[in-house]
Amino acid sequence: MVDLQAALAECAEDVERMMDLLLPQPEGAEARLYSAMRHSAFAGGKRLRPFLVMQSARQFGVDRRCAARVAAAVEFMHTYSLIHDDLPAMDDADMRRGRTSCHKEFDEATAILAGDALQALAFETLVMPETHSDPAVRAELVRDLARASGGRGMCGGQMMDLLAESTEMDIGAITRLQRLKTGEMFAFSAVSGAILGKGPYRAYMALHNYAQEFGLAFQIVDDLLDATGDSEWIGKPTGRDAEAGKATFVSVLGAERARSQAGLLIDQAITALDLFDEKADLLREAARYVVARTK
Amino acid sequence: MVDLQAALAECAEDVERMMDLLLPQPEGAEARLYSAMRHSAFAGGKRLRPFLVMQSARQFGVDRRCAARVAAAVEFMHTYSLIHDDLPAMDDADMRRGRTSCHKEFDEATAILAGDALQALAFETLVMPETHSDPAVRAELVRDLARASGGRGMCGGQMMDLLAESTEMDIGAITRLQRLKTGEMFAFSAVSGAILGKGPYRAYMALHNYAQEFGLAFQIVDDLLDATGDSEWIGKPTGRDAEAGKATFVSVLGAERARSQAGLLIDQAITALDLFDEKADLLREAARYVVARTK
Repeated sequence: MVDLQAALAECAEDVERMMDLLLPQPEGAEARLYSAMRHSAFAGGKRLRPFLVMQSARQFGVDRRCAARVAAAVEFMHTYSLIHDDLPAMDDADMRRGRTSCHKEFDEATAILAGDALQALAFETLVMPETHSDPAVRAELVRDLARASGGRGMCGGQMMDLLAESTEMDIGAITRLQRLKTGEMFAFSAVSGAILGKGPYRAYMALHNYAQEFGLAFQIVDDLLDATGDSEWIGKPTGRDAEAGKATFVSVLGAERARSQAGLLIDQAITALDLFDEKADLLREAARYVVARTK
Repeated sequence: MVDLQAALAECAEDVERMMDLLLPQPEGAEARLYSAMRHSAFAGGKRLRPFLVMQSARQFGVDRRCAARVAAAVEFMHTYSLIHDDLPAMDDADMRRGRTSCHKEFDEATAILAGDALQALAFETLVMPETHSDPAVRAELVRDLARASGGRGMCGGQMMDLLAESTEMDIGAITRLQRLKTGEMFAFSAVSGAILGKGPYRAYMALHNYAQEFGLAFQIVDDLLDATGDSEWIGKPTGRDAEAGKATFVSVLGAERARSQAGLLIDQAITALDLFDEKADLLREAARYVVARTK
């Protein structure tokens, strides 16, 4: 029996230690920038993407310190996206992960710059020799993270998400939106161990498919929590999608069908891992946890 | 006698052709994002950083197409910084390069995302195999661009610049601010040819020093133009620094000393190129042009 919560906590600790090493302490005239980066980077959170990186790396016997660097890079990238998404011009959220969002704690300009600098730091982290001795591996990591986070990935998904408030969207459009917005970064996290460990193509693809289904299910549950959850418990405001008239899985499918769809996706995610042995049990467990979570 | 204007125009044409290849056409639900990226990327401009890349590459016999890819990456990065700097929370500029700034043409959220996606595209462009056959070279380019653009580079400089409105700054502080804000990206541009062509360390350092002095002189002239220039001619509003009570080279040194300081820096920049032959004449000429420019 695997203990997912203990494994998540241990992973979060390892990755936060690495993030702390990589993120300079605030000093000098630009100290405010690093304070803002650290405010958001160390605001807690499940560290689910880092967990996928670490567990993926484990399947291929990758050194834990190398994997933790990739995990830190992914979390820097994720943090930048949260900071920018929370801005008044975007989702206008005052709280994130149970504390004030970056632009509320500092100001908008600082938050924009903190996000920008975190993106650069993510790429810098991936490309440092300490991350992998083979520069071809580091280059592949950079390429895949750039694609997952850019216009055909996370940024493109967020653009679609903003347009969702004023556009009629069917389930196909919402699915593509979420694959871009969340799925690609999940997928990068899950395949990064195969890249680091030079795993076989079919293992890479299995992890990719696992993460795409996982990411979509994760987003459906996020929509469900927004539609039905308690903001104090979740750590950020809820009911915002409906308020904004935004098309989501829940608004199109209804809560019940959305929940059963999430369950189906998780079954598919777990099936995708069939070629892995029991070392992948935590990945399977994480998928089950995603549909069961309440925050 | 070298013809700088013709060389600049030819370089701009080459680099814009490459940017056009690398920046996808707007299509699909995220089309608005690519429209915004293209609006700002193809708004004209001197393309000075790409010019430094191309001329640097020329010193080491680097293939023009490879150099043009690096030049395009640098310009994507520069464009993202302009889009974000123009936002209402930052410099609040409605015009840029003679046309509407990104958030005025689209909206703030789209402009933030367009900048974010351009940053990712810059790194993706550098790391593609077509940029250099050796992944170690591509990794070095990514590392150096990440450093030049991140918290200890461009973003840090912009943070200091925002704080300059409310902080007493002496000439040392302003110099550091500008080295970070503009100098590091100039330096990356100028050394990128040495990285691509695996030039000797002393050539790398010579180009680095050239660009640092060049960048500082460039910024002083920018400050002078803001303090004394005609906004219609320059293509963006002027007098904004004084209005904001911001410390600049001009406010601290006065216009006359600032101009003579720019001249000194340019002499130093040209001296740094002494180890190069006449193939570097366009770099020398570009430095002279920078202090003479009126827009």
